[in-house]
Order: sequence, then structure tokens, then C-alpha cells
Amino acid sequence: MSLPPLLTGVVPPVCTPLTPDLEVDTASLTRLVDHLVAGGVDGLFVLGSSSEAAYLPDGHRRRVVETVVAHVGGQLPVLAGAIDMTALRVLDHAHTARAAGADGIVVTAPFYTRTHPAEIVRHYRLVAERAQLPVLAYDLPVSVHSKLDARLVLALAAEGVLAGLKDSSGDEAGLRRVLMGRRALPGPPSFSVLTGSELTVDSAFAMGADGVVPGLGNVDPHGYVRLARLCRAGDWAGARTEQERLAALFRIVDEGDPARIGGSSSGLGAFKAALHLRGVIDCPVTAAPQLPLTEDEVKRIGKHLASAGLL
Amino acid sequence: MSLPPLLTGVVPPVCTPLTPDLEVDTASLTRLVDHLVAGGVDGLFVLGSSSEAAYLPDGHRRRVVETVVAHVGGQLPVLAGAIDMTALRVLDHAHTARAAGADGIVVTAPFYTRTHPAEIVRHYRLVAERAQLPVLAYDLPVSVHSKLDARLVLALAAEGVLAGLKDSSGDEAGLRRVLMGRRALPGPPSFSVLTGSELTVDSAFAMGADGVVPGLGNVDPHGYVRLARLCRAGDWAGARTEQERLAALFRIVDEGDPARIGGSSSGLGAFKAALHLRGVIDCPVTAAPQLPLTEDEVKRIGKHLASAGLL
Amino acid sequence: MSLPPLLTGVVPPVCTPLTPDLEVDTASLTRLVDHLVAGGVDGLFVLGSSSEAAYLPDGHRRRVVETVVAHVGGQLPVLAGAIDMTALRVLDHAHTARAAGADGIVVTAPFYTRTHPAEIVRHYRLVAERAQLPVLAYDLPVSVHSKLDARLVLALAAEGVLAGLKDSSGDEAGLRRVLMGRRALPGPPSFSVLTGSELTVDSAFAMGADGVVPGLGNVDPHGYVRLARLCRAGDWAGARTEQERLAALFRIVDEGDPARIGGSSSGLGAFKAALHLRGVIDCPVTAAPQLPLTEDEVKRIGKHLASAGLL
Amino acid sequence: MSLPPLLTGVVPPVCTPLTPDLEVDTASLTRLVDHLVAGGVDGLFVLGSSSEAAYLPDGHRRRVVETVVAHVGGQLPVLAGAIDMTALRVLDHAHTARAAGADGIVVTAPFYTRTHPAEIVRHYRLVAERAQLPVLAYDLPVSVHSKLDARLVLALAAEGVLAGLKDSSGDEAGLRRVLMGRRALPGPPSFSVLTGSELTVDSAFAMGADGVVPGLGNVDPHGYVRLARLCRAGDWAGARTEQERLAALFRIVDEGDPARIGGSSSGLGAFKAALHLRGVIDCPVTAAPQLPLTEDEVKRIGKHLASAGLL
Repeated sequence: MSLPPLLTGVVPPVCTPLTPDLEVDTASLTRLVDHLVAGGVDGLFVLGSSSEAAYLPDGHRRRVVETVVAHVGGQLPVLAGAIDMTALRVLDHAHTARAAGADGIVVTAPFYTRTHPAEIVRHYRLVAERAQLPVLAYDLPVSVHSKLDARLVLALAAEGVLAGLKDSSGDEAGLRRVLMGRRALPGPPSFSVLTGSELTVDSAFAMGADGVVPGLGNVDPHGYVRLARLCRAGDWAGARTEQERLAALFRIVDEGDPARIGGSSSGLGAFKAALHLRGVIDCPVTAAPQLPLTEDEVKRIGKHLASAGLL
Repeated sequence: MSLPPLLTGVVPPVCTPLTPDLEVDTASLTRLVDHLVAGGVDGLFVLGSSSEAAYLPDGHRRRVVETVVAHVGGQLPVLAGAIDMTALRVLDHAHTARAAGADGIVVTAPFYTRTHPAEIVRHYRLVAERAQLPVLAYDLPVSVHSKLDARLVLALAAEGVLAGLKDSSGDEAGLRRVLMGRRALPGPPSFSVLTGSELTVDSAFAMGADGVVPGLGNVDPHGYVRLARLCRAGDWAGARTEQERLAALFRIVDEGDPARIGGSSSGLGAFKAALHLRGVIDCPVTAAPQLPLTEDEVKRIGKHLASAGLL
Repeated sequence: MSLPPLLTGVVPPVCTPLTPDLEVDTASLTRLVDHLVAGGVDGLFVLGSSSEAAYLPDGHRRRVVETVVAHVGGQLPVLAGAIDMTALRVLDHAHTARAAGADGIVVTAPFYTRTHPAEIVRHYRLVAERAQLPVLAYDLPVSVHSKLDARLVLALAAEGVLAGLKDSSGDEAGLRRVLMGRRALPGPPSFSVLTGSELTVDSAFAMGADGVVPGLGNVDPHGYVRLARLCRAGDWAGARTEQERLAALFRIVDEGDPARIGGSSSGLGAFKAALHLRGVIDCPVTAAPQLPLTEDEVKRIGKHLASAGLL
Repeated sequence: MSLPPLLTGVVPPVCTPLTPDLEVDTASLTRLVDHLVAGGVDGLFVLGSSSEAAYLPDGHRRRVVETVVAHVGGQLPVLAGAIDMTALRVLDHAHTARAAGADGIVVTAPFYTRTHPAEIVRHYRLVAERAQLPVLAYDLPVSVHSKLDARLVLALAAEGVLAGLKDSSGDEAGLRRVLMGRRALPGPPSFSVLTGSELTVDSAFAMGADGVVPGLGNVDPHGYVRLARLCRAGDWAGARTEQERLAALFRIVDEGDPARIGGSSSGLGAFKAALHLRGVIDCPVTAAPQLPLTEDEVKRIGKHLASAGLL
């Protein structure tokens, strides 16, 4: 399968189940993929932030992308995160993704370094030139500590450098600017815009976004698939109801131990705890050095799942 | 050579000379090492931020540490940066460093992730447990986006997890807290404190720091060696004069293209341009996607070198 | 006129026209009020950020609120910003607003200080206790450097401390949390939620927001009034078209001198230049020390107004 | 008394004692001034951040500056903070200070607004033009959220706009740049550089700073006066010992309730609690909405005072 000209719908960032000794649990991973496919998703995104990519050594990363691509067997497009500090390091991950058969890569601006916009442009050009795979820009200021400006993204789209954008910036005005600006791109639509803001998916679709990459979609893929269908059908009242149900469920992330709220481990731990409670994965452990959830947190997550009818 | 119980003096972060097609220029690299050794430095730090570690793929990183350790042949301790997002990824770099014969590794807190202090503690414990090399903490908030608290550092020192600190935070009050606190550590002094703030080296020594890791030391190692000697001799007036001379020379970094000031590429480009003008390295290119300096910038750097008597 | 239980619709933050020597131009101010009222707005918000409140000394502030309240004569509710660092200073402005006859005040969390959430709660309680006017919280992290958490806002709403929220944070997921949470408040709806994000008004209404406080509404009040009506009528396709037209017009702010983009003076200058070009105010000057727009910037603004049919 | 051409030595930011109902306690205030004068300080700085200026309404502010200037009666120069968002508001405070007889004002860059460097220059020019008092720039990025660049400060010094700098940025490399740069200013030395970093005073003096504005100087003025004398005498070993004693005492700020560490109220509360325990002021209350210290915090402060020989 190769990437469709326009990637649309629900493309969850696939969690990476681990064994108690922090190896990739490939059996749980394929079970999770089956769970997502059964939920009706339109594509898969491995090795993103919700996949704990930042915590996985290269060997783990390779195993994840190989396992998922092989298991999916071309039913659905598979995007792979190529998350690293700068272009040459990103390209090493791109080559692994390509060798494994992924259909596209998702790439942030440089991080750790302090990088000027003109250097961000060079970064994406270099990656796109050499990756031999479509490149989606990943806008995640909370991790990368810079924001991709709409004009920069649109210029790279017009050049053919970028095949799409995964916007996890939470800046909906910026998302609108990209969506309005891409109408001026030449040729048939071929620049995909996916939101990573899982609590405002109806808004993003209403503005013209093509799809969503919801971390919570690991837990409730059916919900996000329903939401996307309602949005495409223009049933905005129905979409709002479904989105609000999912927003209520998202409290599994918010209502963790206050000491950990705001840290990444709260959300990643909650998704995995929920997948474990739902019987999808064998072990809810998150990668080092993240703290495990407390028993109380897991109990609260169980209650939220129950009231959402997911247990 | 193994790491001395207390690493002291001048330990420059060694720049990584590249060929025009962005491969490691090992001939220039060994020439640069000779230049530093001739300058009287007390140790070498490869694969730090000034070495463009964030820009170098793993193959380049391995070649750098192997080349330098082999060339130094045990004359001086060699520290290697193990710069990556989280513990398991850091450990892959630690293993390469150890295999190459490095004497210690330098490790930041997790980045890209949002990590709580308790998780930073776990991160360092895990790295120290498995690295089989002494671990120095690298405090660099401008890149890592979190600050290592003095109490956290001291607790890890007391536990034996950390062998030292490279403090590039610019927070001199925090540095003082660490220096005062380490006197209470049990046993003979074995926790090295090095400052990475190259314009306040006299202050750091006056507070009790053991040494300095100056990026500008690539360009003028003799200057920093003189400065360290004056500090150790308690000749604070002499130290101030030497430090001010070096601070004036540091303007090669500041007076770059205003469009790039504040970005990392300005400083890294200036150090390499100066090394090239001084005939130490063959090619001043910096790693992708950094913008090269303009001709005007290089000219200004030449003038500063000339007035410092370095051309 | 007193504040209705639920403030809804378009409540523009009224620009503060100044004379060339930086006094309040009351003639232009009343003309601007007439222009807004003629545009069909539902209320007025004086002394907000778009009113340059941060630049106006107390005498100017008093004159603004007195002039507008007197001129409006009870036709519409008038909110007044009470923008200052902490509670006791805010209360001085609250008393001026009350004496002038304003119907409510809009108050940020403390700024300049570093203030804990529990102290933010105390701040609003104290202001509400003593102001003798309804208090709306003003969430503006770009100025205040802290974000009002949805739970904190809802708790203060439940207590009766807050009468509403003006959310200019750009965090639409947070806005949704407030909107979902307020349904659980006891009694008939009496907590107004207004968005200050003028490019995503349709999204905010679709989530259940009551109204909008658009800076650009100074320039094109009719447009925002139409947008609000379309939203209330559930005509989301029509609303999107109107919102996109306004988003295109908003480029008067974005396409200023790149040297100033991101700074406040770009937006404030653009609104005033547009009001001057449209003949509403006599002089486009912004308060010291903001730089005036360049001639080129003003020309570009003129072109945008012309293509929007506003010249 | 007017400001000396070069203000030197210890100029503590005078705490503002309040009554239990949050009025200015003028009796305690004059007692605090006597305590500081008896300690040998060289000047007083009222209405700074440590004075809780951000929490004091204009009436309180006026009473403070009038009380202190009258009580000092010209024995020492008195600087007054004119802390507000922008130039015209600052000027209102400047006029009050001048009417009360203060010898100079201390002024930050604009805050709350987003202001470009060229606008910061305009801000200081306008304030200096109209204030009819010498103006010291106050660099406090933790409150103002922008940093005063050394070049900007030196340019304004060369123009005669600024009479000095109070550097509370914690950026000692930047401080060094200012100190080196001011030697090139024409005429006899007339630009005072004071550090607000109370834990690195010896470093600042060693670099050439003229004095220090230590919050902790309220509690132990004799200590800072000794420290300044040792620095001026070039007794750097003695200075370090005294500075380390004061740094240990500073733990009254650090060891507060962890929930409040990092917030301003922890430090302000500690200084006042210590002044109360030492019998200098009648009531340790801090201004609203700051949380009071807990009993445990006050006990710990008492222990630190005791071990410093101050109880």
C-alpha cells in the first residue's frame, strides 16, 4: 500500500506495548493493531509521541515498524515517526521506516538545537530529498519548543517538500490559516492536514481538516471513527455529542496524580492502563524513566471506562 | 586512562570538523586534538553541544569518539556526550562510548518529553546502573528545557549515581548551591563540578568549581589554560584580565548576522570559522541544516582573531 | 443597564482613539461607539488589551469608561477591563469603573508576580467581594504568563465569584472543558463564556460559547454580527464562509512589518490604521512606546480593506 | 540628597511592612529603615519587587515613598521603583516619587504587552525625558518576561537616558558585558551597575559592579555591608566566606512549603517573617492575594536565623 494522495479519517498514533522488562511486546502490538483495524480506522501512525518514540531505542523502533507493517499487510497506510533532533539523524530513521515498508514519515522541526526558520526549511528539504518517502510535518511545540508557522508549512507544501501536516500545536487559528492557504496550492488536493488535538476534532473537520491522529483513539477507536463519519456527513450536532463523550473519556489523562499532570507520563500511562483494562495489551508498563501510575489512578481510569461503556 | 577522582582544569568541548559533504574529517579532528593538547588542556569532551552532537548521526558520533580516544592514547581523559532523549537511547550511546574507550559520559535530563523531577532521578539512576562508565550530569536548560535543581544533583551525587556536573545553565546562584552542598558529601572529594559558562570562569573558580568546558577553548585553548592557572593561584586580578580578554574574543559569536543571533548555528559556525582561519581545520562547514556564515561574518571573526593576536 | 444574566453575541473590545499628543480623543471614541452600535453589537468592552489598556494612565482610563458609558446611555451593557498586577490595584480600577457606571469588570490573574493557583483563587475572591460589580475572568496567557485552568474557573463560577470568562488563551480544548463543565453549575445559566479568539468563532459557538470579543470587530462589526447570527441559527456552512472572510481580513495584522510581527503593536496599529482609513477615527496613533506602522504597512492594510469591500 | 554620580555599595530593596488589615505600617517601616541605616547601608530602594510593589495600590505606594524619604531626611539616597506596564503609567509613579523627594527611579521594560527592542528604547527615552529624575533600568526577566540586552543598555547609557542598571536577571555573562562595555562610555564614570543577585555578590564585585540590591539585606544588612567592604578591599577569600554565610541564610527562602517554592510569595513571606522574628516589624503579613507562610515554615526560618546568630 502506498500513501493515498490525500490521507483522511482516523489515523491513531499506535501505543507501543512493552513487556515487564521493557522489550517490545509484539503479540500485544499486533493485537492492538487488530483492535484498531476492527474499530474502522483509516491508517496507522507508529512511533509518534503517543507511541513513546522518544523513549524507544533504535532496535525497539525498528521492531515496531516492521511488526506493524508486516501485520497490516497493506490493508491500511502506515506512517512512521522519524523523531530525532536534526535532519541527518532523522534520515537514519527514515531509512529504517522505508526498509520496513512504511508509507510515509512524520518529522518534527529540529529540537534540542536552537534553529531559525530558514534552517527549518533546509531541514525539511534535506529530509524530503533523501528519505524516498512522503514527509508529513509534525507540529508539536510542547516537545519541540518551536511552532511551525502556517506560511512556512504552506511554502514547503507548494514546493512539494511536504505531503502533509500533523498539527498537534493546539493553535486552531494557525490550523485554519493552513487550511485556507492550501486551497491556493496548484493541482489536485495532495497536502493532507490532520489534527492531533483530540478534543476539538469536530472543529478541525468543520474548518476543512482531512483527519485526526487521536492518542485516545487507541482506547476507543470506534468513537473516533464515528466522530469522523458524523463530521464528514455534516451532522455537526451529532459530532459534538460524540466529541463531548470522548472529551469526558479523556479525563483518564487529566485526572491522574496531580504530581504528574502536565508531564507526558500521565497521558501515556493512562492510555496503556486503559488498553490493559480493556484486555487489548498484556502489560501496562511505560518505558523508562516514566513513573508507573498509582493504583488509585488505575481505579479512576477503570471508572471512566465503565461509564463510557468500554469495560 | 581512566577518569581521575576529580576532573579539574580545562576540558574543551571538541568541535567536530566535517568535510564539505558532511562526513567527519578525521584528519582535521586529530589536528584539532593536537592543537588542544598543545594548548595544555586537562581533558577532552567530545560529542557535546559545541561538537554539534545533536546534528551528527550515530555513525558520525562513533567515528568521532573512536578517532579521538585512539589519537589521545591515554594522555588525557576523554569524556563523551551521550546526548539523546531518554535513558534507553542514552545507553546505546554509552555503550558506543565505552567500546571506544571513553573515560566517562555526559548526560542531560530527558528532553522532548515532559518529565517530572522524580523521573529525572530514575533516568540518571538507570543510566548510571547500566553504562559501566562514570556519568556527569549536563545541565543545559536552553536545549533541554528543564533545569537541574541543586538538591536533585546533590542527592544523586550522594548516592554515587553522578560523578560530576557540567553546568551550562548560566545560573551561578545554582552553581554556588551545588558547590556549597558538595562539601557535605561523605568521603574524599569525588564529585567534579565544571562550568560551561565561558564568560564567568573566574567567578566559577572563585566559588570553588573544579574546571571549565569552554566552547571558545577550541579557538584559544592557551587562553583558558592561563585563566585556569591564574584562578588556581588565587591571582584574581590576573584572572579577570584574562577572562575579559576571552570575553572580548567571544564577540565572534555575538556579532554574527543579527538574523541568526540566539540560534545555535551562530556560535558553532563562529568557532569553526575561527579554527579554519587559524589553519587548524580544513573546512568550516557546520552540519545540516545550519546556515553557513556570511562572508561578512567571517571577516568580522577574522578581525576579532587578529586583535586577540590569534592570526 | 445592568449585565444580563448571560452575556451573548458580539462584544468588541473598543479601541481607544488618541490625539496626536496621546490624549484620549473622545470625539473619535464616541464615533467608534456609534459605528459599533450601528454594526449591531451586543455589548462593549472598554479598557481591554485591544483598547491599549496597558498603555493608558489612570486618567485616560477613567475618561474612556466615563465617555463610553455616558454615550451608550444604557442601550448596551458596557464591560470595563480592570487590568493591573494584583487584587488591590485591580480594585482601584474597579471602583473607577463602578463610579462611571460600567456593568461589569474583566480581570486577569496576577501578573509580574509569580502566583500559585491557590493565590489566583484568593485574588478573584477578593476582587469579587469588594468590587460591587460582576467579575469576568480574562484568560490571556500571552500577557499574563499563566493559564487559567478550567477546573479553577469552574470552581470560582460555582462559588459565584465569577460571572463569566473571556477566553483569549487560544486553547480550544480548555474552552471546551469549561463549556462542558458549566452545564453542571446549579441554577439557571448565569456564567457567560466569551471567546477572544477571533479566527475560530464558529468553532467556539459550535462548542456552546455565548459570544465573542473580537479585536477585528472594531474594523468590521457587521461581519462579526453576521457570523454570530449564522452560528446561532446553526448555519455552520454559512458561518464558516463568513469566518473565513474575516480570517482573510485579519491579515491586516499578520502582514505587518516582519520586524514587528508577534509584538502587540502590530495588531493594535493595524486596527487603528483600518479605523482611520475607514473614516471612523481621526488619528491612527497608538500609545507610547509603540512604533507607528510604516507607510507600506498602511498601504497593505488599505488593500485588504478594499478587497473586503470595507473601503 | 541627590543621587551621587556613581551609586555604590549596599542598597537594599526595603520591605513594606503592613498592618493586619493590609495598610502600610509606617511605624514598622521607619523602624526597618533605622535597622538598615544602623546596618551601614549606602542607599535605600523602596517600591521594588521585594517591597511588594506589584501588590500595593497607588495610595500605599505614595505613603511608602513619602514616609521613607521624610524619615531618611537626606542621610542616604532613596531610589523608588516606578513599576508599571508602560511609559505613561510609569511616569505617573515617577511624578509621585519626585514630589516625595526620591533621588531616582527604577524602571523595567514594558510588561503585559509584547514589546520589541526598538520600543523598549523608546520607552526608556520617554520616561527619562519627562521624569525629571535619574532613571535606572531594572532587568528582571522573571517578572517582565523579556531580557534587557547588554548592547541596548549600553546604548541608552551612552545617550544619557539611563543613570544605571539594577540587574536581577541572574545572567552574569550579560552583567559582565555591561561592565566591560561601560568603560568605553565618555566622561567620568556615571553609570551605576548594581546586581540584584544576592547569592553571587562577590562575583559581581569581582567583575566590577558598583553595588548590590539584596532582598536578604532587609534581614541581615550588616552581613551585606561586610561583604561589600571585603569585596572593595579585594579580600576575595573573606568575601567568599561572608557570601557563603549569607547564601546559607538565604535558605529561609528556599526551604518554604514546596507547594509555594518558585512563587514570589515564598521569598517575600520569608523576609517579612524573619524581620518579625527579629523584632523589626510588628506584623509579618504579606499583601493579598499571597498565602501566608505556615507555622512550620516560620519555625524553619527561626532555626536558620538562630544558626546565623541573628536571633
